[in-house]
Amino acid sequence: MKILRYLLIFVPISIVGEFMQVSPTLMFVLAALAIIPLAGMMGEATEEISYYSGPRIGGFLNATFGNATELIIAFFALKAGLFDVVKASIAGSVIGNILMVLGLSMLVGGIKYKTQSFNKKSTEVSSSMLLFAVIGLTIPAIFTHTVAADLLNTRYEGLSVIVAVIMFGIYLLSLYFSFYTHKDIYAVEHDEEVTSKWSLKKAIGVLVGATVLIGLESEFFVGAVEPMTQAIGLSEFFVGIILVPIIGNAAEHSTAIVMAYKNKMDVAVEIAISSSLQIILFVTPVLIFLSLLFTPMSIVFNEFELVALIFSVLIANRVAGDGKSNWLEGVQLLAVYLIIAVSFFIL
Amino acid sequence: MKILRYLLIFVPISIVGEFMQVSPTLMFVLAALAIIPLAGMMGEATEEISYYSGPRIGGFLNATFGNATELIIAFFALKAGLFDVVKASIAGSVIGNILMVLGLSMLVGGIKYKTQSFNKKSTEVSSSMLLFAVIGLTIPAIFTHTVAADLLNTRYEGLSVIVAVIMFGIYLLSLYFSFYTHKDIYAVEHDEEVTSKWSLKKAIGVLVGATVLIGLESEFFVGAVEPMTQAIGLSEFFVGIILVPIIGNAAEHSTAIVMAYKNKMDVAVEIAISSSLQIILFVTPVLIFLSLLFTPMSIVFNEFELVALIFSVLIANRVAGDGKSNWLEGVQLLAVYLIIAVSFFIL
Amino acid sequence: MKILRYLLIFVPISIVGEFMQVSPTLMFVLAALAIIPLAGMMGEATEEISYYSGPRIGGFLNATFGNATELIIAFFALKAGLFDVVKASIAGSVIGNILMVLGLSMLVGGIKYKTQSFNKKSTEVSSSMLLFAVIGLTIPAIFTHTVAADLLNTRYEGLSVIVAVIMFGIYLLSLYFSFYTHKDIYAVEHDEEVTSKWSLKKAIGVLVGATVLIGLESEFFVGAVEPMTQAIGLSEFFVGIILVPIIGNAAEHSTAIVMAYKNKMDVAVEIAISSSLQIILFVTPVLIFLSLLFTPMSIVFNEFELVALIFSVLIANRVAGDGKSNWLEGVQLLAVYLIIAVSFFIL
Repeated sequence: MKILRYLLIFVPISIVGEFMQVSPTLMFVLAALAIIPLAGMMGEATEEISYYSGPRIGGFLNATFGNATELIIAFFALKAGLFDVVKASIAGSVIGNILMVLGLSMLVGGIKYKTQSFNKKSTEVSSSMLLFAVIGLTIPAIFTHTVAADLLNTRYEGLSVIVAVIMFGIYLLSLYFSFYTHKDIYAVEHDEEVTSKWSLKKAIGVLVGATVLIGLESEFFVGAVEPMTQAIGLSEFFVGIILVPIIGNAAEHSTAIVMAYKNKMDVAVEIAISSSLQIILFVTPVLIFLSLLFTPMSIVFNEFELVALIFSVLIANRVAGDGKSNWLEGVQLLAVYLIIAVSFFIL
Repeated sequence: MKILRYLLIFVPISIVGEFMQVSPTLMFVLAALAIIPLAGMMGEATEEISYYSGPRIGGFLNATFGNATELIIAFFALKAGLFDVVKASIAGSVIGNILMVLGLSMLVGGIKYKTQSFNKKSTEVSSSMLLFAVIGLTIPAIFTHTVAADLLNTRYEGLSVIVAVIMFGIYLLSLYFSFYTHKDIYAVEHDEEVTSKWSLKKAIGVLVGATVLIGLESEFFVGAVEPMTQAIGLSEFFVGIILVPIIGNAAEHSTAIVMAYKNKMDVAVEIAISSSLQIILFVTPVLIFLSLLFTPMSIVFNEFELVALIFSVLIANRVAGDGKSNWLEGVQLLAVYLIIAVSFFIL
Repeated sequence: MKILRYLLIFVPISIVGEFMQVSPTLMFVLAALAIIPLAGMMGEATEEISYYSGPRIGGFLNATFGNATELIIAFFALKAGLFDVVKASIAGSVIGNILMVLGLSMLVGGIKYKTQSFNKKSTEVSSSMLLFAVIGLTIPAIFTHTVAADLLNTRYEGLSVIVAVIMFGIYLLSLYFSFYTHKDIYAVEHDEEVTSKWSLKKAIGVLVGATVLIGLESEFFVGAVEPMTQAIGLSEFFVGIILVPIIGNAAEHSTAIVMAYKNKMDVAVEIAISSSLQIILFVTPVLIFLSLLFTPMSIVFNEFELVALIFSVLIANRVAGDGKSNWLEGVQLLAVYLIIAVSFFIL
């Protein structure tokens, strides 16, 4: 989405804003507007590097940098001790990917094409994995909520680290799965000739530059969260579960929607489900590990997040098992997202 | 089902009973027995009118009047302030449709035919929508139960109205979907020549007459609920979740079972799932809106209802995804219904 | 698995240990090691008897003795009043079958064969039934937990007996289904000529002998549970949900894994799902009925067990609906099992 690039103007504006100490609410908005195009450039640079590195390393880079923006924002939130924002943004990314991205893709694609089909086989593998991953991720939390309300925190932390190690192990095994033992499943046919627009040097430069700037903007963004939420009466939880995922994923989201519009629903569904899977198997464990450097963060989600995660994964499995989509399904997913967002906002 | 028509005798009997002030328990039974054939006549009249109005308006009338009886009973319960009965009857209609109607259809059809198949494609669209609709409907309730037990009631009401508006919006869009953009999915092949038995004038007369009488009988019925439950120690909740749905849907239920017996499982499954969908997208929001005229009713279901709703929808999705049925599946659905009913009765 | 037979040496060792009054922890281990090969021999003897009795009675014997070991262990635990161990072992058998047995089968089979397919149709029938059975089984518990914390115990017991009667009725009907009305679904093609290794007399002798010894060892085992858990600080719940199912099902588990290794994933999946189904429809009601001889046991599972049961059944349905497996899916199922086990161990 070339059009997002105009938003880069907010990078210098937000830096000026930070020096001029504008209000936290304004700073929050400026940093958010700056992060969106930077995330897009990071994605583009990764694609370019993949061109030079060959499909194997390229696939790995894409998989790793795909959620880099969320990881960076969450890292600064972690550093600032905003655990609720971090965990809400993990849950919010999964539900945002499944309800908002898939919903918008199905709506936009479905207005143009009456019924869109996608290959059930490839999405069934990912959606099964997503089900198993979410169950693994939520079991400690569910057990904790239902029974052990008075346990020592140390136990949670120990359990969280173990779960994080298991999740990260599965992440590594899934890379081995997709780049060695079962790489043919993920083989994408290229209809169009892929050519490199940038030199490798330029691509690496853009990647490094975007990463540094996202780091800077994330620090502005996270710094503004607490005073902003107090100033306008918004909950940090709402910021984490709704706003952070939208900002961090805007570039990725627009790709999925463009793909749906081009009748490539396979790609749109795959982006939404794989991205959710990566959040759980890669971003979450890395954040748990990083938190050990500051204050250990437990993996225990609150009930809101659990319900939203489990419902999202049921919906993703239903959608993937169906193999077809139409505009009304898109509307329904968006309606569920809207109801969740409104409930979070009001309650 | 012609045989149900003999029950019309209970219309005058119940009116006489009301004047003679018979016991509430007897009145409850008389009104129930009178409502069953009236609901059947309303359905028949709607079919006849569809014949004259053409398929588009006819489809709309069928969709709207399909659950008219439940809506009328619920309206009078709402007016009488029996919110628990109203909400229980919403949940009970969904579980009754899925467990009892589908269960009986599969059992009756499965005794005659070893394995019955039905078109997965058409039922998958409806069952996906049902999943999304139930998730949307239950999210506010789940959030409320898990966290916000001490919030002000006004917040619930605001949230309930918003959810009702979203649900009703989807209902309107789904009419647009089935009568304009995707009308071919719902095209039913007519094996037999459809001929009108009644004149349009007669059909409209029957429809108006049945509606008026259902209204009258519903008032008797609802008026008897409170004294009857106190007299015989039955909970209002049990009346709402088990008895009201059976009475309101008897005519529709018998159609589904007859269809299964004729090996038209497609139609039986579609009746059960579509009817559930309509309860959620049409009847529920309309009741929320109507309640604003009296005392606002929240959309927050109790835990019993939530569990029953979510399990029913999982079962419906499993059944629809399967595409086949046999008598043992029917028995199992009925067994789940029986366990739910017994649990409600005992607890 | 011939190799398991060497473990029979632990039968005399454990008897000696009991007389010498060794520590409960050692006794627990010795009895467990003795039960494993005895359960295997019981299974083998049942197979042999089936050869003589013809497929119908043979099928019935296999179905009934398939979970006999767990039933015997649970019977002695019931007699000793260890209700928590009994209920945990019911839930643990279901999750062990689905997560550990299926997980190991998919991993072992998937290392040898890139993708393993299995007939969706036969597994879909069983997995649907498993879904319905688990929902029926858990509804009284869920209702009890969410609402009726202060009800009289007598009510639970009455409800438990009713649910047990319904479950057992479905068990009988499912035998009728599989041996009369739909026996062709379960017809197994025999690639290899089945010949009897034992005479009928020997087979019956082995069956009786193994049953008696399992009874004896189960008494040792159950007798050691309480002092052992106190001595080494393990919870009885952990013993019930993780250890009892592993011991009781070891022989069956090894069969499933061998089948997967021979690329007969149909058989492996069917063992895991049918065995779970039998635990719910046969073992559980029989235990409820038997408990009436001692102290009535309610069917109300705790929240841990409910969550584990419901998630397992969702996973089983996903796996069965997929029709394919690979090593990474196996790893994921094992990871979920590991997370559950670690959570139970820590919390």
